[in-house]
Amino acid sequence: MEKKGTRSHAASSSFLGSVSPSDREGHSSTQSSHRLLAYSDALISIIATVMILPVAHTKMEDNESVQLLLTTKIAVYLMTFLIVTVAWAAHIRLFQVIVRIDDCLALLNLVSIAEVVLSLLYTFSLMATFPEKILGILLFCGCVMVIGSVIVLYAFSRPFLLNEQIQISENQIYYKHHILKVIMRVPLMCFFASIFSFIFFELSYVLLAIVIFLPYISQCLKWCRSKAIGQVDETPDSMLFYTYLPNEPLSKERVEAFSDGVYAIVATLLILDICEDNVPDPTVVKEQFGGSLVAALQAYGPEYLAYFGSFATVGLLWFVHHSLFLHVTKTTRFMGLLNTFSLAFVGGLPLAYQLTHEFPRNSRNELEAIQISCVIIFFAGIFQLTIWVVALYNEQETLHPYVRYGGREHVFMLAKLALYPCVALGTFFLTCILSKFSASIFHLMEITVPFAFLVLRLLVRVGLALLRQIFCPDRPDPRTVVEEEDDETRVPFNALVT
Amino acid sequence: MEKKGTRSHAASSSFLGSVSPSDREGHSSTQSSHRLLAYSDALISIIATVMILPVAHTKMEDNESVQLLLTTKIAVYLMTFLIVTVAWAAHIRLFQVIVRIDDCLALLNLVSIAEVVLSLLYTFSLMATFPEKILGILLFCGCVMVIGSVIVLYAFSRPFLLNEQIQISENQIYYKHHILKVIMRVPLMCFFASIFSFIFFELSYVLLAIVIFLPYISQCLKWCRSKAIGQVDETPDSMLFYTYLPNEPLSKERVEAFSDGVYAIVATLLILDICEDNVPDPTVVKEQFGGSLVAALQAYGPEYLAYFGSFATVGLLWFVHHSLFLHVTKTTRFMGLLNTFSLAFVGGLPLAYQLTHEFPRNSRNELEAIQISCVIIFFAGIFQLTIWVVALYNEQETLHPYVRYGGREHVFMLAKLALYPCVALGTFFLTCILSKFSASIFHLMEITVPFAFLVLRLLVRVGLALLRQIFCPDRPDPRTVVEEEDDETRVPFNALVT
Repeated sequence: MEKKGTRSHAASSSFLGSVSPSDREGHSSTQSSHRLLAYSDALISIIATVMILPVAHTKMEDNESVQLLLTTKIAVYLMTFLIVTVAWAAHIRLFQVIVRIDDCLALLNLVSIAEVVLSLLYTFSLMATFPEKILGILLFCGCVMVIGSVIVLYAFSRPFLLNEQIQISENQIYYKHHILKVIMRVPLMCFFASIFSFIFFELSYVLLAIVIFLPYISQCLKWCRSKAIGQVDETPDSMLFYTYLPNEPLSKERVEAFSDGVYAIVATLLILDICEDNVPDPTVVKEQFGGSLVAALQAYGPEYLAYFGSFATVGLLWFVHHSLFLHVTKTTRFMGLLNTFSLAFVGGLPLAYQLTHEFPRNSRNELEAIQISCVIIFFAGIFQLTIWVVALYNEQETLHPYVRYGGREHVFMLAKLALYPCVALGTFFLTCILSKFSASIFHLMEITVPFAFLVLRLLVRVGLALLRQIFCPDRPDPRTVVEEEDDETRVPFNALVT
Repeated sequence: MEKKGTRSHAASSSFLGSVSPSDREGHSSTQSSHRLLAYSDALISIIATVMILPVAHTKMEDNESVQLLLTTKIAVYLMTFLIVTVAWAAHIRLFQVIVRIDDCLALLNLVSIAEVVLSLLYTFSLMATFPEKILGILLFCGCVMVIGSVIVLYAFSRPFLLNEQIQISENQIYYKHHILKVIMRVPLMCFFASIFSFIFFELSYVLLAIVIFLPYISQCLKWCRSKAIGQVDETPDSMLFYTYLPNEPLSKERVEAFSDGVYAIVATLLILDICEDNVPDPTVVKEQFGGSLVAALQAYGPEYLAYFGSFATVGLLWFVHHSLFLHVTKTTRFMGLLNTFSLAFVGGLPLAYQLTHEFPRNSRNELEAIQISCVIIFFAGIFQLTIWVVALYNEQETLHPYVRYGGREHVFMLAKLALYPCVALGTFFLTCILSKFSASIFHLMEITVPFAFLVLRLLVRVGLALLRQIFCPDRPDPRTVVEEEDDETRVPFNALVT
């Protein structure tokens, strides 16, 4: 936890400052791209998450094993999620180069999102259903080629839309050619893939897989190498996953918008389930329950419990994510990658909800469904914790002082982030041992965790006080007191001045 | 179009400036509420829009009239939409008073949103299905009471979370009592409604209707009166729909976030439809189409057309909304109300999509479905146009100079906003006259409108040039040229300085 490199921070923040949307807004022929990007982030995150639905709505036979049946479907979901995030990373890269938009570009962007829906969701499911037909490949490649080329060529034909760093750069031509070369790589490979599909279609699948997963593989390899042989100095080529420009960090705002989209759509899928199915039919109430609405609603009891448990889990995972990114000042690309993995598991929560209330009580499938839910929650939480741990490695650049190692919120943050992984892991092993009470243990967990969050600050304070009493009983902690007071006095002073 | 009142603008903007989230961020025990509010906006807008689904998924018999069957369902949808927007307005009011949040308040907010789902959607459908049972009323009232009281009482017990205007105000006690009185009015009325439900349950429905629709009715009455007898000076009580504080405009950011949520969820509902149903089954392809995938996909042709048409309509209505709010500097409460009405119709677009591709070609129901779609699109567009017209009445306060009357983007803005209402109206009358070709006319409209947007700027320029040639052929327009040049030179200069 040493103080490493604040050298690039000042440069990058002043650079960011010069292209911030607020100071150039209000022109009429070109516009700041802020709201367009937020809307694109929301739509792309929705597209990524929606693919869980075919998995969640699979009709399960009670005598088959859930795990075997679901493995392939979950693999397809994770693959589409990763494909969409690769497209999102390309979108981020592109709009770091293009910082101003005009009407035409805004429309092109909307068209390209509609095409992402078509190509990445529809033609992908077409390819999965009919692997030997070349129509799916041709459509997929065609869409990717059109999306990539049209926006890039339009934007580069109007240089006033581009990033100022490129506009004022001396070797502007070099930049343009370099970026164009990188961006056009994907459409070109798709072009070759579509040609190969006529000759030998297995090869074109290999080409497409390379196009899609190359960024992830190269990213992982680079990180492993940098950990193994020490700090590699960052060449422009290692930057290519999220940015073309050296010193340009991954935009924290866009990561937040994308994450909010995923959490919101997961909550929506839960809302859809509760609104469509769970109002009892008047005739059923009259015949089966003797007209007593309360008795009829009691029959739905477990579903309400599952619904509120899942809704609380989504809400609290969002809350942890919110707390974490509130203290993050800059997002590195590796943190972005970890965030994507965490979100992929959050997107699996509707599946967990569907599974836990579908099977009869005390069946073998119910046990497996609850264990799957625990695994999903565990991974969603553990990747959030990993983001923070990775951020701690460059804490001078990435974190506010409060949550750095030794800061006064450090322990509280650790407790917040570790709560869900620990509880999920504990529940998993408990359900393995006490397999008969699995459902009740799971519901108990879902109900107690929100209360645990409410009293977490108290628990952490008590724990720290105990530790301090045990290890160093005579040293007071003056820093906390001073900062508390500083907080209290600062606010009214500010208020009086402005 | 006179210059009316810039007096309150300076005061309100400097006041807003003092509570902007950025300059107070980074504290640890309290946080800026910015991202929490954006997420709440997204969730509430999703809740408001999702209720179109039971309407859209109604199974229609082909021999009944669509209009008769749908009228009641659409009324229920519009009512829930309005109820949720009333809850949203209350949320806005509350978080204009509470400007800082701590962990506990963030959790309370998430709980309250889960309760909004339960009370406003679930118990409302319970009340609609079982109007004579008092359980629904009791649940509804209980939820409203809990939501209102807990957050308010918690926040007012910690004054450092409140707005600075209240903190530094001399009559702080008066403010608190006034706001508490207003907020607690709704839970109190719900309390009475729940008591009356035991005695005479029709009365409690009347009480609830008053609670829900009072803000809208009083808002409309106030506006009508101010138009009839002239400018009424704004007493604090007339402010109560969107704010408790005089000089506090409706937050433009929150209106944008709410609108983006509605547009995104409407797009999602379309995506869900295309992803779930439209990949052909391999066995069907083999048996019915002789293994030809292209032939099988051609059978889905009209659905793709309907899908792309609806997706384009949502995207373009968002685009128009985006262009409009880019030039709006301040949102008045009446503009917010009109925006809500526009969004209520945008939320109806999934219904339009569902209707237009459900019925057999050239049936009477298809004609009616297409006319309903035209009406929905027309109203969504005309309310957007009305927002701009209302903004023009106070153009000094609400609009950027470019789009004011006589500004250089004025005509272009008018053309953008008027395009959809005009086209929808034209299509409606065309389908009435040429009832045989209704589907082809409708699809033609959906395909041509995006192209119309692309060439709109050109069309407007040509039209203006023609008008200028006709009416004043010898006067050049120097202002446009100067401002264009100013734009071009400003950017590199800025870039060199920073």
